[in-house]
Amino acid sequence: MDGRWKGRSSDGRGTVDVGRWKKMQGRGRGRRNSEENWKGNEWCLLSERIRSGRKRRRPATATSIPDSSTVEVNPSHGYFRSMLFYISHERKLPLQVAYIDVKCSTDGWNAIRDMVVRGAPAIAIAAALALAVEVSGLDFTGTPAEAAAFVSEKLEYLVSSRPTAVNLSDAARKLQSLVSRTAESEKDAKTIFQLAVANLKPEGGVHKSVVFFCEVQLEVLNYHFINAYIDAAETMLVDDVADNKAIGLHGAEFLKQKLGNKHISVLTHCNTGSLATAGYGTALGVIRALHSGEILEKAFCTETRPFNQGSRLTAFELVHDKIPATLVADSAAAALMKNGCIQAIIVGADRIAANGDTANKIGTYNLAISAKHHGVQFYVAAPVTSIDLSLPSGEEIVIEERSPKELLNSEGGLGKQVAASGISVWNPAFDVTPADLITAIITEKGVITKSDADESFNIKDFIQSAK
Amino acid sequence: MDGRWKGRSSDGRGTVDVGRWKKMQGRGRGRRNSEENWKGNEWCLLSERIRSGRKRRRPATATSIPDSSTVEVNPSHGYFRSMLFYISHERKLPLQVAYIDVKCSTDGWNAIRDMVVRGAPAIAIAAALALAVEVSGLDFTGTPAEAAAFVSEKLEYLVSSRPTAVNLSDAARKLQSLVSRTAESEKDAKTIFQLAVANLKPEGGVHKSVVFFCEVQLEVLNYHFINAYIDAAETMLVDDVADNKAIGLHGAEFLKQKLGNKHISVLTHCNTGSLATAGYGTALGVIRALHSGEILEKAFCTETRPFNQGSRLTAFELVHDKIPATLVADSAAAALMKNGCIQAIIVGADRIAANGDTANKIGTYNLAISAKHHGVQFYVAAPVTSIDLSLPSGEEIVIEERSPKELLNSEGGLGKQVAASGISVWNPAFDVTPADLITAIITEKGVITKSDADESFNIKDFIQSAK
Repeated sequence: MDGRWKGRSSDGRGTVDVGRWKKMQGRGRGRRNSEENWKGNEWCLLSERIRSGRKRRRPATATSIPDSSTVEVNPSHGYFRSMLFYISHERKLPLQVAYIDVKCSTDGWNAIRDMVVRGAPAIAIAAALALAVEVSGLDFTGTPAEAAAFVSEKLEYLVSSRPTAVNLSDAARKLQSLVSRTAESEKDAKTIFQLAVANLKPEGGVHKSVVFFCEVQLEVLNYHFINAYIDAAETMLVDDVADNKAIGLHGAEFLKQKLGNKHISVLTHCNTGSLATAGYGTALGVIRALHSGEILEKAFCTETRPFNQGSRLTAFELVHDKIPATLVADSAAAALMKNGCIQAIIVGADRIAANGDTANKIGTYNLAISAKHHGVQFYVAAPVTSIDLSLPSGEEIVIEERSPKELLNSEGGLGKQVAASGISVWNPAFDVTPADLITAIITEKGVITKSDADESFNIKDFIQSAK
Repeated sequence: MDGRWKGRSSDGRGTVDVGRWKKMQGRGRGRRNSEENWKGNEWCLLSERIRSGRKRRRPATATSIPDSSTVEVNPSHGYFRSMLFYISHERKLPLQVAYIDVKCSTDGWNAIRDMVVRGAPAIAIAAALALAVEVSGLDFTGTPAEAAAFVSEKLEYLVSSRPTAVNLSDAARKLQSLVSRTAESEKDAKTIFQLAVANLKPEGGVHKSVVFFCEVQLEVLNYHFINAYIDAAETMLVDDVADNKAIGLHGAEFLKQKLGNKHISVLTHCNTGSLATAGYGTALGVIRALHSGEILEKAFCTETRPFNQGSRLTAFELVHDKIPATLVADSAAAALMKNGCIQAIIVGADRIAANGDTANKIGTYNLAISAKHHGVQFYVAAPVTSIDLSLPSGEEIVIEERSPKELLNSEGGLGKQVAASGISVWNPAFDVTPADLITAIITEKGVITKSDADESFNIKDFIQSAK
């Protein structure tokens, strides 16, 4: 941003000129914080709320421990997911169903950084929609290029909340490209009206109606710009659910063929369900599809230390959907495999390199080694947006290290001290599972398998042919 | 126990005739609960306290979080280990240094079952000494065979507190054998004095002094029987510390030769230190020896879910001894190995089968698989009492399953609910690592290696030749 941007935006960050981007309180496309939209676990469209203006009941914040099997949510893929303005506070689940307001990109950044919202697809959507809320509440009178630069800077800022997540940077890149293109196409039209307003204004009197007309046109153009961004962010939301359902179907069909069992049991790690995506889930989507296809014997979920996404969130989703499920300590997974309790492991992905190496929640690599040792199939389930073809291998993936408190204290760092005072901690958030430990990668476009010749994935060709 | 045993013993269990085994309050060898003995982490000899009668200060129960680096304990292998009457409450460590009274075998049973005291060697000693305290507080006038049966039944009861631990059953078997032998040898002498008392008493008068002499002799014999048991229990205590130091020296020397590095880093799992033994430790004893030999670069300890023995106890011991150390999540161990951070893993053992298969804390098997995958050496360090030659392989080892609460709630089941309500749990306390994943077994008699011919351990021959 250059020096022309003054003042502060609504989130207290950035340098936006409030004269150009100003709050649109009381206007037709302004925010309605008191409203809410509740559609089970699926996030609701911001545009739907903005456009329809319908009043919806906000789910009350529960203070007691909810019984996930009786919570009244959409039973098809059920979960708590409030509309964008009220992101489900996942750190408080499953003991408390609570929500936080997302009023701007800073709220979105904090929610991602503090793991209030998590899961690679979910954080990309949360970031995009957080900014959608912010821009929907601002009015802008500057040039389209300035507007594009503002949005672009905000997206860069949001990406910094979780640098490992390729979906987030991929979403930011796509949205940045969109706003640049929109700005470019609107530049000429805007210039005409801006010139008209500048030229006509001094003359006054007889030309007042023309000046007013030009001013309205300028606002319509700005509105169009904002809506183009919001529509793009919301499309991500819609597409994610559809993609996850496709992942589930492809995965269930593939596993059925590959394993040839009438009933199979699978293990999953971390949370990749409705709480990690816009709905249905990736790896957990495959488990849902296996269950609805009556192929699933049992799902096992790991505790997923140190943040307990497995015992808190995946267990919550499995119990809710009445899927036969058992929780195990991460370190018990090898013994589970030795006992012949599972036929496959299915995990999500934070980022997949061009060769198939996969960065995912810490412990994934550990499971993959055990799976190989026991001849258990190991699958990664993720949308193609998780694939980063710019990375030749997993070696280029930078692993985020998180706070020692997650291991030192209970409840992922929020609870009482557990560990001995003074001990050093190494707490990587992710690890990289090399492609040679992965049986196949399940995407919404189909299942990426290895060529028989050299036992390697050809992901680039798969994506090209799937387009 | 047959019907001749009436009444109740001091622990509220069993059917001992209080006329035969009665409390010895106010007598020379009675218990002194208000005393204490504090020798760093090493347990103090019961006989020393009984015989010397010296008053010792009991360590105050701390309510604040202790800084393990400044606690005033024996710096050579430092740790909290009260004398037998006050077992360090390990569930409360490292946040609180607290003790529980062990007045009888029931207290010992509860302490083992509730993980107040844990670690295979430590629980064997705790069980033996708990019964030593109980019998030291009782007087017995029955036959030696009845006394032996009483002790034998109590030992059986104590073994039931942790059936997986071979050291415990081994200790019980040895003590049972000892009391049987003692009872046998005392039978004849006792019969003579009992006959004398029975025959002389009716005559009265002139023979009073002879009757008194015979009665004193009977009491001396009972005292001798009790002391024989106490001495045997205490010998286990002394031997354990000596054995652990020998394990440490053998292990450090072997690793130095095997790895040929000036400085090596090792990972350990669970707690096998002063808090799991009578002092110094087994696997942690090797780490202590590596450190004092200036060979150790760094020690890594796993969190050890779900009971956090690693983050609570091992971290506490490592910080106390100023050993460079870092805590990792169990599931991060594979990533640690991939990064080349460790050259060896050293773990303890709950039970070692004749072929070298080793039952140890859940997660050990997982680590062994990862170690093999990364070419990291994997060592088991344990006294020979952990070896159960009656078991041909690990397949015969029955694995104890513990409460689901350990995974559902924080603080090993004692804290707040963490996991989703309604989820099933599989919580095995141990797993079995097959011998083919183990590089060598470090004992106090030396290091058991594999024969080059068939890559298998010949433990039976090793034990025979070591005798």
